[in-house]
Amino acid sequence: MAVYTEVPDDELAAFVKAYDIGEVVSFKGIAEGVENSNYLLATTKARFILTLYEKRVNRDDLPFFLGLLEHLSAKGLTCPQPVAGRDGEALRMLCGRPAALVTFLDGVSVRRPTARHCAELGRALAELHETGKGFALRRPNALSVSGWRPMAEAAKGRSQAVSPELDAIVAAELDHLEATFARLDLPKGVIHADLFPNNVFFLGDRLSGLIDFYFACDDAFAYDVAICLNAWCFEPDQSFNVTKGRALLSAYHATRPLEPDEVAALPTLARGAAIRFLLTRLVDWLDTPAGALVKKLDPLEYLKKLRFHQQANDATAFGWRP
Amino acid sequence: MAVYTEVPDDELAAFVKAYDIGEVVSFKGIAEGVENSNYLLATTKARFILTLYEKRVNRDDLPFFLGLLEHLSAKGLTCPQPVAGRDGEALRMLCGRPAALVTFLDGVSVRRPTARHCAELGRALAELHETGKGFALRRPNALSVSGWRPMAEAAKGRSQAVSPELDAIVAAELDHLEATFARLDLPKGVIHADLFPNNVFFLGDRLSGLIDFYFACDDAFAYDVAICLNAWCFEPDQSFNVTKGRALLSAYHATRPLEPDEVAALPTLARGAAIRFLLTRLVDWLDTPAGALVKKLDPLEYLKKLRFHQQANDATAFGWRP
Repeated sequence: MAVYTEVPDDELAAFVKAYDIGEVVSFKGIAEGVENSNYLLATTKARFILTLYEKRVNRDDLPFFLGLLEHLSAKGLTCPQPVAGRDGEALRMLCGRPAALVTFLDGVSVRRPTARHCAELGRALAELHETGKGFALRRPNALSVSGWRPMAEAAKGRSQAVSPELDAIVAAELDHLEATFARLDLPKGVIHADLFPNNVFFLGDRLSGLIDFYFACDDAFAYDVAICLNAWCFEPDQSFNVTKGRALLSAYHATRPLEPDEVAALPTLARGAAIRFLLTRLVDWLDTPAGALVKKLDPLEYLKKLRFHQQANDATAFGWRP
Repeated sequence: MAVYTEVPDDELAAFVKAYDIGEVVSFKGIAEGVENSNYLLATTKARFILTLYEKRVNRDDLPFFLGLLEHLSAKGLTCPQPVAGRDGEALRMLCGRPAALVTFLDGVSVRRPTARHCAELGRALAELHETGKGFALRRPNALSVSGWRPMAEAAKGRSQAVSPELDAIVAAELDHLEATFARLDLPKGVIHADLFPNNVFFLGDRLSGLIDFYFACDDAFAYDVAICLNAWCFEPDQSFNVTKGRALLSAYHATRPLEPDEVAALPTLARGAAIRFLLTRLVDWLDTPAGALVKKLDPLEYLKKLRFHQQANDATAFGWRP
């Protein structure tokens, strides 16, 4: 949530000349996205988001991200659509950084999703999985099970500051997941992998678009479902709302039917998703200096979610109706 | 440059219901303004800036700021226009803070103003001074000559970190200004007091609007001119560009003729303006922790400007043609 690179008006004007998008009418740095500099650019023709990719984004991944957005929007999914310059290129340089323009999406993210929002999300997630089929590029999920142990090791010893039993709980859970999650063999394809409420826009109750595909990768579709169960269906007190879970799963299943082994794996996938966000939040928590203007997310929220998933015998715990 | 207060969608929706502005279509935190939280709000009817006033703004000043914007825009000046709710109130509460909606202005601020931009600015500044006449509320300038010595005292001793001779230079200059600047008796009225290039929008070469009136106050019109000479007419190497100065002064004078004693006072006013920004930048510099995500402005830039003004015998040094 920041603008890291300031773009002066003269450099912006030169950049915009490479496109057939009219003249600049307004230009504002926006507080969106954690890793990059983002601007809302209005021209005489339309509105756009201009992103400058900062250091934490691997430049080799940019063709995957931009190509995916092009693929998805060409097939009718509502997501930011990269805008090519007159030379056909969507990725160019601005202020010494890789930069891209994408179309602006209307909509507002919801803080407290209702079951209706969860149903919309489930449908859109299934559409994303279906629409991603046929996309040629591949990107492995660097934050899946093989990446969790190194993150836990990096936090080890220091995690006492967050919770005294955290190291032991995480170690035991990783033992379990390395024996279960790691052995799953489920239908795979392009997943969003970070489809939290702040990355989903609504106009009223209707979903109007998906954004922020910078964790997108190839992985099990049902893992994306499990991430959304974690991100959308818990109440502020971290109790699971079965009505919301059912709404999400039913709507997903109606668009892309879940296979029996995907349904059976949901408790394991949900545990894996909880550990993934617990660990990245824990590392960010420990590595962010006190007083920094970055919003720290509580890792313990995901410890509570993990405890729920550990009690789940099967997918009915999440609202699944066989 | 930050969003300090997050406004959840449900609180936003309730807030917007108090206005006759249509439905929310998008809502983005923007990196504009140093002291407050600002959002770009688009509805089915128009675009607006929503400002939540944070702690550093004195709430007692808000009727002055909003009343001034109403007064100026009613008289045809292009500045943000406060939007009243259905109850006629422009100032209400949101997320525990005073908040106001103003109209959105198109335009982009320029990093390196040309003489043409300086002429546009001079004309707009004179229009602002003329248009402000008749505004009923008063607000003293807390950052004028009587406020400078306390700021210098607050930095004293610590300013070595910035420059070893700074304390002595500032003390001597304050002696001079307390004997000269403080005794000026010039035409007064509403001034902007912070009309830097980032607070002025252009569409191409044409000035499209003035923003950020949160330092506006009652003071000498010619002091506002002197602030703009400091902010607009120096080159990146801190040499004064007489062509730009002449463009600014001529365009101002053509709209609101400068009186002889205003012209005569320009060197003193320019020295005062340089000290004012030197001191506020110095205090911010010393008080901002290293590593904070706030952009620190260099106080020494204004020391160089001050040195130029100290050599100015009369207004011709700034490009004034008698």
